[in-house]
Amino acid sequence: MKAKTESYASQHRERHLEELKELLRIPSISTLSEHKKDVHRCAEWLSGALTHAGLENVEIMPTAGLPIVYGDWLHAPGKPTILVYGHYDVQPADPLDEWHSEPFEPVIRDGKIYARGATDDKAQLWIHVKAAETFLKAVGSLPLNIKFILEGEEEITSPSLAPFVEKHAEKLKADAIVISDSPMLERGKPALLYGLRGVAGVEIEMLAARNDLHSGLYGGGVPNAVHALAGLLDSFHDEDGRVAVEGFYDRVIQLTEQERGELARVSQDEGKIREDLGLSELFGEKGYTFTERTTARPTLEVTGISGGFAGEGIKPIVPARASAKIACRLVADQRPEEIFELIERHVAVHTPSGLKASVKRVLQGNPFLTPADHPVMVAAAAALEEAYGEKTALTRGGGSIPIVDVFERLLQAPVVMMGFGLPDENLHAPNEHFDLDNFDKGLQAVCVFWEKLDNQ
Amino acid sequence: MKAKTESYASQHRERHLEELKELLRIPSISTLSEHKKDVHRCAEWLSGALTHAGLENVEIMPTAGLPIVYGDWLHAPGKPTILVYGHYDVQPADPLDEWHSEPFEPVIRDGKIYARGATDDKAQLWIHVKAAETFLKAVGSLPLNIKFILEGEEEITSPSLAPFVEKHAEKLKADAIVISDSPMLERGKPALLYGLRGVAGVEIEMLAARNDLHSGLYGGGVPNAVHALAGLLDSFHDEDGRVAVEGFYDRVIQLTEQERGELARVSQDEGKIREDLGLSELFGEKGYTFTERTTARPTLEVTGISGGFAGEGIKPIVPARASAKIACRLVADQRPEEIFELIERHVAVHTPSGLKASVKRVLQGNPFLTPADHPVMVAAAAALEEAYGEKTALTRGGGSIPIVDVFERLLQAPVVMMGFGLPDENLHAPNEHFDLDNFDKGLQAVCVFWEKLDNQ
Repeated sequence: MKAKTESYASQHRERHLEELKELLRIPSISTLSEHKKDVHRCAEWLSGALTHAGLENVEIMPTAGLPIVYGDWLHAPGKPTILVYGHYDVQPADPLDEWHSEPFEPVIRDGKIYARGATDDKAQLWIHVKAAETFLKAVGSLPLNIKFILEGEEEITSPSLAPFVEKHAEKLKADAIVISDSPMLERGKPALLYGLRGVAGVEIEMLAARNDLHSGLYGGGVPNAVHALAGLLDSFHDEDGRVAVEGFYDRVIQLTEQERGELARVSQDEGKIREDLGLSELFGEKGYTFTERTTARPTLEVTGISGGFAGEGIKPIVPARASAKIACRLVADQRPEEIFELIERHVAVHTPSGLKASVKRVLQGNPFLTPADHPVMVAAAAALEEAYGEKTALTRGGGSIPIVDVFERLLQAPVVMMGFGLPDENLHAPNEHFDLDNFDKGLQAVCVFWEKLDNQ
Repeated sequence: MKAKTESYASQHRERHLEELKELLRIPSISTLSEHKKDVHRCAEWLSGALTHAGLENVEIMPTAGLPIVYGDWLHAPGKPTILVYGHYDVQPADPLDEWHSEPFEPVIRDGKIYARGATDDKAQLWIHVKAAETFLKAVGSLPLNIKFILEGEEEITSPSLAPFVEKHAEKLKADAIVISDSPMLERGKPALLYGLRGVAGVEIEMLAARNDLHSGLYGGGVPNAVHALAGLLDSFHDEDGRVAVEGFYDRVIQLTEQERGELARVSQDEGKIREDLGLSELFGEKGYTFTERTTARPTLEVTGISGGFAGEGIKPIVPARASAKIACRLVADQRPEEIFELIERHVAVHTPSGLKASVKRVLQGNPFLTPADHPVMVAAAAALEEAYGEKTALTRGGGSIPIVDVFERLLQAPVVMMGFGLPDENLHAPNEHFDLDNFDKGLQAVCVFWEKLDNQ
């Protein structure tokens, strides 16, 4: 079967790329209202492309915002079902004068296709569409059931996605969600992003007297809100750089020795990181490397603080109020709601008597983790390895990708982040491009992945 | 002699008050440039008044700003010399519509004279001028040597006073400096303010990475400037509310049991203070009362803090810089220069490795203390007691009065702060007034004070 798909993909490569160029010519910029009709046009174009690829039940589904293109092929009873997510909207092309060719007139140079949206995310979603076509035309069927949803609002933080997925949860039900919208480790080295951190953000306000007081008349005699806040903030970490909030680590899934080995393999040199950041030393929880601390360990960071008079010169007051903002990055299986409670308890315990502190919950997102030994991950890693002839790196990210949270939370299925972009493909910048070697190997990897899922 | 002075003062009271009204009619507002000529006119008027009182060598001495009026009487060889300081400039009268009578058309109602500058400081300086006249006319001589300097820039923080005193230090040399520009404890209860706190103000900046870093990518892996600053600020105090900067208290003159008794006698009820400030608890160095902590003990207060992003919402960063402003209030014999050094050392020791902290010295002033058992204080207290028939309260202030520092530092003589104002005489506010009972008793007290100094 592999021979059939490879041969089909190779024979139809020229056409596949010509079609990709058509897709890239549509300036589907979701951030600019004057391009709204282009975004709609792009959805139309994609619905035609899905049908042409052999997918069924293709429809342009409305949302409160820009439409989502749906299509499926569900004729493999008893086989797994995967949901492929991609987005067809793009960032604006500015600054235009830094482009070497027109952002919406794709050209191929040195095996790379240049255009706005090339790597983010049009060529990556196109790989999956063409993989479906390849199977359906070359083999006559797919080795599993597949559903596509292609979004038009990713670059404006996907406001309609969660309601859409929630509303259509039954229709979108799948055994795994596959997303190709992240980078490989480097050229020729495939990667699977299997973990992301969640977030829990709070604002803390510390209140002392009714008003700021003159430090000559009251200094030394009354509580100082900044002192109390500084003491509280200092209490959030112990001497080993660990978060000292009771219970904070209770739900943290520990790194296995194998994972640590994997992360070490993909880690940047810490000396280089220090130099880039202008730091003489890195910092954090003892016993973990920089990469582990920033991707697989949770953290509590004060992101901002203010209190008293911070203008020019010194205003001699005892400040009556001070506030701080905190962003915790969470890892599986921590839950923002629980972390909020633990922080609230910590604040209550560490507020000196005579002062009042309040905690406001302002930001939350779940961490993401598809265990590296999950069958769907094992299949994905093996498929990539087969296509690239290189071991697949298993990486974790320190930030959050809200759509991943949406799918995990609402569809309760593992997410596979199988990215085919490269870190230097100028995403969101002039001269965005996509390496066609990854189009070919990616298409091959996706086909192998599907077959492997079939055989599990 | 006392009979003679009392009788003269009483006979000439009407004229003294008419003259005071003339002085109060001059709108010598130093803060408003359009009143510059009124300030000069006031200096002219006062030079005439000093001459008329019998003082000699009267002159209007120029400064870089507004003039200082000088006059002396130095015919008591072997007797002490005192320097009397007062200021003839006043605050603006706004808001005008809240005055019950014209601010610069003095009227006497219920034994009080109403006008801008009545209590601050024209009536108070007038007491000393008329005391000199009383002695010189009724007795023919003064019991000691006296020098007057009357300033026209006190309400604009006396920018020319220090250079003036420094330049004329020999001419102004005295055994004691007497200032009547502070309040009595309350009606009928005389007070001597014998201590004020000095100040040492610094700005601390904490620097981590070259720029703010994304908390998703770097959180948990790099130093956070706000965390480091919070830890540093928290290290400034120990659990007993004492300043934990090594050596901070080394030069602090301890309160005597007698002083503590005096301060207790004049202290406000702490329950009342709490209520006024909206606090459930007061706070500060263990083992001292609120009044002691805010007047006779030094303090270190963070007056302002900023770092990271403090706008609306949470910007998920690891802040690269944070800064705090600190104002220490100092007591005798602490010296700002030494405190700066101690703080700098403390900051160096408490800055975590990997971060850089800097300390900028921005504000300094010496504390003031004339020991309560100093002969000049004993004489002043006895004179007030004699005039008022009430024990003189010995009080300390928690703030700073820069002119006191100037005199102590540059003339190296004890300062006696013998105020005749009342706390509710609307200084700097509409309907400023001065109680004429304190004009009469004040004049008598000053005369007795001079005689007592003579007899020491």
